[in-house]
Amino acid sequence: MRKNAKEIKIIKSPAALQKFSKKMQAHGKSIGLVPTMGALHKGHASLIEMSAKNNDITIVSIFVNPTQFGANEDFAIYPRRLKADAKLCATAGANIIFAPEPQAMYPLPLQTFVHNPSLEHLYCGKYRPVHFAGVLSVVAKLFNISLPNKAYFGEKDFQQLHLIKKMVQDLNFPIKIIGAKTIREKSGLAISSRNEYMSPKEREAASSIYAGMITAKKCCKGRSTCLLPTELKNIIQKKIQQAGGKIQYIEIVNKNDLMPAKTTKNAVILLACYFGKTRLIDHLEL
Amino acid sequence: MRKNAKEIKIIKSPAALQKFSKKMQAHGKSIGLVPTMGALHKGHASLIEMSAKNNDITIVSIFVNPTQFGANEDFAIYPRRLKADAKLCATAGANIIFAPEPQAMYPLPLQTFVHNPSLEHLYCGKYRPVHFAGVLSVVAKLFNISLPNKAYFGEKDFQQLHLIKKMVQDLNFPIKIIGAKTIREKSGLAISSRNEYMSPKEREAASSIYAGMITAKKCCKGRSTCLLPTELKNIIQKKIQQAGGKIQYIEIVNKNDLMPAKTTKNAVILLACYFGKTRLIDHLEL
Repeated sequence: MRKNAKEIKIIKSPAALQKFSKKMQAHGKSIGLVPTMGALHKGHASLIEMSAKNNDITIVSIFVNPTQFGANEDFAIYPRRLKADAKLCATAGANIIFAPEPQAMYPLPLQTFVHNPSLEHLYCGKYRPVHFAGVLSVVAKLFNISLPNKAYFGEKDFQQLHLIKKMVQDLNFPIKIIGAKTIREKSGLAISSRNEYMSPKEREAASSIYAGMITAKKCCKGRSTCLLPTELKNIIQKKIQQAGGKIQYIEIVNKNDLMPAKTTKNAVILLACYFGKTRLIDHLEL
Repeated sequence: MRKNAKEIKIIKSPAALQKFSKKMQAHGKSIGLVPTMGALHKGHASLIEMSAKNNDITIVSIFVNPTQFGANEDFAIYPRRLKADAKLCATAGANIIFAPEPQAMYPLPLQTFVHNPSLEHLYCGKYRPVHFAGVLSVVAKLFNISLPNKAYFGEKDFQQLHLIKKMVQDLNFPIKIIGAKTIREKSGLAISSRNEYMSPKEREAASSIYAGMITAKKCCKGRSTCLLPTELKNIIQKKIQQAGGKIQYIEIVNKNDLMPAKTTKNAVILLACYFGKTRLIDHLEL
């Protein structure tokens, strides 16, 4: 934590940030980037602290990116609170907040996209068809504007993190991607900016997600032969449904390539479900 | 021209070049990149000379990129002659040749692509459906490996140059794209590595491409009201067909957005045609 929390600078212009970052580069300074959509919480704070520890300059981007939301999704209501976010960033040790307006990021409608046709329509992508091309394209933009040496992302968005790592590898971005462990509430619920959409009752019930995944993992560990992915899915599904949740998908995938897993070795549970109107995602390594 | 032509260094590893470029960046050196597929000619030399004049370091990449060729195209027979190319690069003032093997550029099959769904299936893209996604993706890779301040491309590949400029603008690459005039043989034929596929007779006949475009442009200029795009196309088509060429497409497009032009104001002729088995492209601003 940084004591001198007043120094944080808010930059709104992509050109101004790029100029600043180029200057830092030419002075041999290392830059850490933490891309966010704001409404910052403990999970983001852990990323910012990690970056501040390992880089000369830490930039937090705060941008609710319209191109990664579908027409019926929560773009309009996604929480925006720059003042509180700035305080958290400063306390966690960031130096710069990059908070552009949509018009500055998209002065013209985007024609050029970065996408991953092999993985972008699976899992979350099946239900959010424009999401991952929107994410990869805006992350490529943020990389090119901020010119970081390292960029920090939460493992919570597991498929997103995988796609970003793959993009960096495939397109040779000169950036190291650091994934950080999901931070959870005491109940086990993964901390997310979207949790605040829920009523206290829904929020309590949503702890069944983690409970279900843990039960599945324990069942798996207790046996000499692994349970099949289908059996694990049933265990989790039951737990979430009993708590009143509605499953969107549960998949067991290989950790390394995100393809459907045949056994539970090196596998990860990925899931999305609804509590009330709130869509939640989570994951657990088996 | 550079007298000391022996100093040129050939780098084959993407990681080694990226490391070198990062070092140059941290020392405040400017880098110019000239991406090529080798078989270098006067057109390339003009780009290299321009870069050498305006940057501390000039990198020429020589890579016949498999992902931008269709299954029935000339990937296997595209001319490769690194030794002669190295000589031309050195004489024109380059410092580094980046000549990776396909395996080094694509250690795994590419999953992440850069593409422009608005423009990649028009004109050349109509007949080469995978071409422009292959081009944009490999150029993004070359940019991220070479980390140039400026990159130089010939106007000859007019649609390609437009798509690359759009990519840089859309994805905020910190790079200035410089387009350089098409260099022509005395006959008017645009210089291209593919010209050597042709017999002397075909090569002579192919001068009808430029002659046709010039005739169309003159007709247009001589009138107070512009000719319609269709009339211009007919003039060019007739000239090329009379010389034995086979038209693939002729389009009159707006210079700024590459959309079909309604008048000839700020318009460009784009065309592709065959002489024998050789596919040639050309363009002329009206």
